[in-house]
Amino acid sequence: MSRDIRPQIESVNAQFASALKRGDATGMANLYTAEAQLLPAQSDFVRGTEAIRTFWQSVIDRGLKGASVETIELEVYGETAIEIGRYRLLAANDAVADQGKYLVVWKHDNGTWKLHRDIWTTSQPPSVS
Amino acid sequence: MSRDIRPQIESVNAQFASALKRGDATGMANLYTAEAQLLPAQSDFVRGTEAIRTFWQSVIDRGLKGASVETIELEVYGETAIEIGRYRLLAANDAVADQGKYLVVWKHDNGTWKLHRDIWTTSQPPSVS
Repeated sequence: MSRDIRPQIESVNAQFASALKRGDATGMANLYTAEAQLLPAQSDFVRGTEAIRTFWQSVIDRGLKGASVETIELEVYGETAIEIGRYRLLAANDAVADQGKYLVVWKHDNGTWKLHRDIWTTSQPPSVS
Repeated sequence: MSRDIRPQIESVNAQFASALKRGDATGMANLYTAEAQLLPAQSDFVRGTEAIRTFWQSVIDRGLKGASVETIELEVYGETAIEIGRYRLLAANDAVADQGKYLVVWKHDNGTWKLHRDIWTTSQPPSVS
């Protein structure tokens, strides 16, 4: 717990946001471990680099232009870390497309921290359309 | 990792399902640590025993009658464990009201394992209503 990996985690989160901003789904997918899983709403598990790349490409294709994340809590257990935070997804003109919270399990993999399990939920109320 | 706590986790999951089935939100909330957090969709963080009890009471009030969960993955780091699994929520007549996946961070707390962070996402497609 004493080991402060927060700067490393925040650096990867910044790389994630940068890759999304430039529409680089491959760059996003490469921040995950080879055996990573997303647990998105309205989808089954998304497993492995290629499926994760396809998932983020579909998000980019829907017009997402950026993200910001804020780490709230970070616990480290050797080569594993658990991060909880808040996210915002931005559409064109920096309009907030979605905002919510997430839990990421990180693995220290060959010298760098990579996302391993990634689950998030919107905090926005149900749409009234 | 060698320590097999799966039977203990599955036992608490069974208690959770039983409490939901009998409409006992207090019993559900007591399976969480005092500092526990839910991360539900369309809500902010739900923090602490009383807020967690109120959350599950609202689920019971909406007609949920039961749940089944299946542990897929369980990693143990001392007094902390990370569980991933699938859930089903049942309405009256055992109709499936929702199904999806979850990630729970468990803490070993005074001799028993308790839910500490609880996040889940539906795997059902968007409704077409």
